[in-house]
Amino acid sequence: MNKKAVWIWYPGDFEIVLANSVMTRRYERDVFIPPFWRTDDCYHNVKFIKEFALTQVNNIKIKAEGSINILLNDNYVYDFTGTLTLPPGQYKMVITCYNPNGLPALFAEGEEVVSDLSWDVTCNDHRTVKVKTSSLVGNNSLPNTVRLPVEICFPVQTIPVSGHTVYDFGKEIMAYVQIEGLQGKGDLCIYYGESIEEATDFEHTETYDRLKIENGIVKTEIAKAFRYLVIDTKLEFNKKISAYYEYLPLSRQSSFKSSNPMLDAIYQTALHTLHLNTREFMLDGIKRDRWLWSGDAYQSYLMNYYSFFDKEVVRRTMLALFGKLPVATHINHIMDYSFYWIIAFYEYYLYTGDGDFIKENFDKIIAMIDFCRGRTNANGLMEGLPGDWVFVDWADLDNAGEVCFEQMLFYCALSAVEKMGRKLNLDSKVNKYKNEIKELKIKIDKFWDAELGAFIHSYKDGQPDNTVTKHANIIALFYDLCGDDRKEKIKNNVLLNAAVPVITTPYMRFYELAALCKCGEYDLVFDEILSYWGGMLAEGATSFWETFDNTEIGAEKYAMYGRSYGKSLCHAWGASPLYLLGKYFIGLRPKCPGYQSFELRPQLGRLTWFETKIPLNEGYLEFYYSKEKIKIYCESASGLLVLPGQRHIAGAVYSHYQGETLVEIEKATEYELDLK
Amino acid sequence: MNKKAVWIWYPGDFEIVLANSVMTRRYERDVFIPPFWRTDDCYHNVKFIKEFALTQVNNIKIKAEGSINILLNDNYVYDFTGTLTLPPGQYKMVITCYNPNGLPALFAEGEEVVSDLSWDVTCNDHRTVKVKTSSLVGNNSLPNTVRLPVEICFPVQTIPVSGHTVYDFGKEIMAYVQIEGLQGKGDLCIYYGESIEEATDFEHTETYDRLKIENGIVKTEIAKAFRYLVIDTKLEFNKKISAYYEYLPLSRQSSFKSSNPMLDAIYQTALHTLHLNTREFMLDGIKRDRWLWSGDAYQSYLMNYYSFFDKEVVRRTMLALFGKLPVATHINHIMDYSFYWIIAFYEYYLYTGDGDFIKENFDKIIAMIDFCRGRTNANGLMEGLPGDWVFVDWADLDNAGEVCFEQMLFYCALSAVEKMGRKLNLDSKVNKYKNEIKELKIKIDKFWDAELGAFIHSYKDGQPDNTVTKHANIIALFYDLCGDDRKEKIKNNVLLNAAVPVITTPYMRFYELAALCKCGEYDLVFDEILSYWGGMLAEGATSFWETFDNTEIGAEKYAMYGRSYGKSLCHAWGASPLYLLGKYFIGLRPKCPGYQSFELRPQLGRLTWFETKIPLNEGYLEFYYSKEKIKIYCESASGLLVLPGQRHIAGAVYSHYQGETLVEIEKATEYELDLK
Repeated sequence: MNKKAVWIWYPGDFEIVLANSVMTRRYERDVFIPPFWRTDDCYHNVKFIKEFALTQVNNIKIKAEGSINILLNDNYVYDFTGTLTLPPGQYKMVITCYNPNGLPALFAEGEEVVSDLSWDVTCNDHRTVKVKTSSLVGNNSLPNTVRLPVEICFPVQTIPVSGHTVYDFGKEIMAYVQIEGLQGKGDLCIYYGESIEEATDFEHTETYDRLKIENGIVKTEIAKAFRYLVIDTKLEFNKKISAYYEYLPLSRQSSFKSSNPMLDAIYQTALHTLHLNTREFMLDGIKRDRWLWSGDAYQSYLMNYYSFFDKEVVRRTMLALFGKLPVATHINHIMDYSFYWIIAFYEYYLYTGDGDFIKENFDKIIAMIDFCRGRTNANGLMEGLPGDWVFVDWADLDNAGEVCFEQMLFYCALSAVEKMGRKLNLDSKVNKYKNEIKELKIKIDKFWDAELGAFIHSYKDGQPDNTVTKHANIIALFYDLCGDDRKEKIKNNVLLNAAVPVITTPYMRFYELAALCKCGEYDLVFDEILSYWGGMLAEGATSFWETFDNTEIGAEKYAMYGRSYGKSLCHAWGASPLYLLGKYFIGLRPKCPGYQSFELRPQLGRLTWFETKIPLNEGYLEFYYSKEKIKIYCESASGLLVLPGQRHIAGAVYSHYQGETLVEIEKATEYELDLK
Repeated sequence: MNKKAVWIWYPGDFEIVLANSVMTRRYERDVFIPPFWRTDDCYHNVKFIKEFALTQVNNIKIKAEGSINILLNDNYVYDFTGTLTLPPGQYKMVITCYNPNGLPALFAEGEEVVSDLSWDVTCNDHRTVKVKTSSLVGNNSLPNTVRLPVEICFPVQTIPVSGHTVYDFGKEIMAYVQIEGLQGKGDLCIYYGESIEEATDFEHTETYDRLKIENGIVKTEIAKAFRYLVIDTKLEFNKKISAYYEYLPLSRQSSFKSSNPMLDAIYQTALHTLHLNTREFMLDGIKRDRWLWSGDAYQSYLMNYYSFFDKEVVRRTMLALFGKLPVATHINHIMDYSFYWIIAFYEYYLYTGDGDFIKENFDKIIAMIDFCRGRTNANGLMEGLPGDWVFVDWADLDNAGEVCFEQMLFYCALSAVEKMGRKLNLDSKVNKYKNEIKELKIKIDKFWDAELGAFIHSYKDGQPDNTVTKHANIIALFYDLCGDDRKEKIKNNVLLNAAVPVITTPYMRFYELAALCKCGEYDLVFDEILSYWGGMLAEGATSFWETFDNTEIGAEKYAMYGRSYGKSLCHAWGASPLYLLGKYFIGLRPKCPGYQSFELRPQLGRLTWFETKIPLNEGYLEFYYSKEKIKIYCESASGLLVLPGQRHIAGAVYSHYQGETLVEIEKATEYELDLK
């Protein structure tokens, strides 16, 4: 038999159940902290439906998570013991599965019929939809108890610190801890540290595990983030400590080498940082919050398209963030995060070409944008209502009133919905937005201050606040919301203007550096990457931080939110060099949805050469670039290489257009182009 | 301390969780059958909020179902061990409770602060609402594991039947079975029977329990419906069999005695039938389906107002039937059942005066009626859409097209919403329905066939079907949808017309007999009660059946749905004499919402006397009525006694109006009135 049986369930429900499980592993010392927002649940009572013909006797083994009954051609199967033996014939099988405490899931395997993606499922609401499965679920990981694989690792050294032994695992990991050779019964406490200071400051350590020891071995139940451990116990033990490093297996990963070893180290650390946070879902940070935050995840998606290109984790994260209808609040309660969630669908489509995922979830996308549209003020603009968090950035901003940044995201989100609708032949669902988008664009224009040559921060009570912050101006560039004239003004009056308050978070720096690249400021961005991310490496970082300020000294640099070690030292948004290098230096982007063809606009900046292998939707692009030479090979797609200036390229078809040289790259063809 | 701590939770969620538990105890032999409809779940992640002042040190014991954290004046409480010791002061306490597998519930008890109905709760959707509790939950029954109390009982006799010993418990019960004195290990099967035939016909028994015996005693896990048991085992046992009869404790219950002993027996059996089905919720039947069906429950509510007047079970059932927003289907998938659900709110308000319950759930009521309004056809009338079940009755009806019966219920439901809105000052929510109600009334008129002098069954494809069934005509009378002229025509042309197909279900007979009472046909109804319900008693019934046909003989009378014992012999809708006698013979109804005053229009019919004690919203009405004398005492409300004819009543204030005698009854006053 050729068909492969997989575990199947109601679409979207696996992600909701798994997210509930993942997001409730956050502790601050002994305080359990579940998410601050409404958490949804799966449908617990579903029917799996399949019509099939058998040409021979089939012995169908059926397993389920939940209680089932089987209706075969409209008759209940009595005395079912796990295997259904069916003679040849035509069948309609309806398997009801009820799982009050988790996801109802089904696995069926016969000679000619198996549980696969051809099955239908209903939550008994008169609608049937196709089932889904996940690569996270296999023989060793059942739908309701998914755990990622682990790899054992050991301390690379021990460090004595004021009477304690600090076990150093060499780099940041997320892992279960195992201690063997314990003698007797008693208490044991594991203090986790992202820094040595944290692991040894028992009064303030953010995470610890207090364990009751009854036999010689103990293993923790929740993987936690750490590089350093201290074990505090009166029990004797042989100091055999190991960690089970838990990670998402990646089938693909980008590589990058260049003439600058510091940049290469940054790239490697960024990959490690993103990988640690890219798990069942894209988390914000692995020590804290260990949650799904839509704005954080949005940046991870973009970094992921230039590093692991794991489509499944993007889909899982998007579905889990939304939960179930009806929409009652902004995603994570944050206005901007609703918009990023919508925009991310469009970008997912551009990078993956996976229109099915958009279509399957279009009702949710529409519900989300309509929720936002239902909350506009009398001017048709977004303004925080009670309970809404108008975040923008961790910065000293007054976000009351009509915040320009939010209107821009609103515009981008509304446009994204409209564009998806057009591209996927769902016009009837998006026609209503067409005029609104035009009108919104015009409304946003009021935030442009011609005198200041910049977008101002906000209008409050009908009055402009005349304050210029970088945020709206960055976003205008990032999403191409203004023409060359304003772009140039923003660059000079805002981005390069020392009088405008600096961006301090890596989160907003993501957009800022991208915006600077869009203005051609590659050298500036290059220097900034080396100083900011290089600065963390100089501090001994093995993963990138939630925030970094090189003027902070000693343990001060680990403090945040009023807590000594509140800062996360492994935060996904710290990995943005992956995106910046991928999109603006390597210069890769999809020319058609799903990289049916690619575009490559490389920039060496201050480098003399770089070499990269970078995943596309399918396959890789291999690319070497120096002042003298280009090597390209792409196994899966053709593309266009765009070089500045009018050059003559030997060995390829090329043309000149508006001062650039366009080189046609055929797929599965090795190119070695001389640039001398 | 005076305050009493209770378990608290998010409103409506207890009912959803409990209903999921109750409705998944249905088995057909070994086949597990969960409900056919979408089942919802509670919010699993909530915050309980309370501001309070302490004048002394309080030791607050806190218990929860779920994992909690405590935020006290915006700071997490670390190292919480179960009791919080707080000095005098002002506090804001936020307790987050997360329970992935059930209802998050909280219990807190300090000297000055306790968990009670003054607390707020949010599901993290920016809205806080008041918490709820339930009398079903106490020290012995926790929120997530509620079980009703039990009472042990024993077989009253054993009956040998073809080699088996049948244990007869004397009457229908719902109970756990316990067998003691078993010797050895092995299998044992308990066959349950509502009839001797069912208990002994192992091949076809509807319910059984197959148990593995490992020690000397066994007790079943799910209470099942039976009068008779057969134990099938090869093990030796001492035949010590007992049953734990599980029931809802009732604080009040009506009584009825009359000059007709058969009628009294019917009344007692109806009480027993209703009580067996009135449990955590109002079930349809205790053998099958053991589910909440809105149409069945609707009749139980009405019977309940004339027997137990248990308001809590009505509220629990109404909440559980709805589940959570958004509305995706009709309630139980049945169009009529959505309408009954809405109408029941209005009647609940009339009988209980509990406007708070209506207000708390008004958004759900609006969502339900708007769901229906969103499914009308081009004529603005209800027509079954794919997946909708247009039920009306178990009868041979063609319910395609515009069914008159459904339009009438639609009209009643829409009117009920409008009336509730007006009475509870929610006008702004219902103003939009005003014109629609008028228009709908006019539209329904097209179903009146002047020639036939009756409402026809339906319009299909714009054409009247010219068929007269009793259903629409009964409903028109039951809900007072037509004037005296049409009422008289319906009585003669439909209700008393032998050419119109008879009603065969007790379900529809409920409405039919009520409609006949409304036409003054008390003797006919009296005879019908004696013959139909008396007929079941003659068959040995100890509870009333799902259907009854006195022409069926032998085991044939137990068959239904193609199964030998498919028929339920204890079905709530079989108890309708409680309502018929209470509303139309005793003649009691609320004159103002919540029985602030009552109206009493008694009918002796063929009786020479009756005596009753019947619960009002608060307290009882005690009432004796014979041709010679009336005795009345009502502890809690004043009312109006209405007697036919112009009489002179000694000992009371009375007046004459439109051929009737109106006697004013003061509360807490004993009346003995001479009618001679």
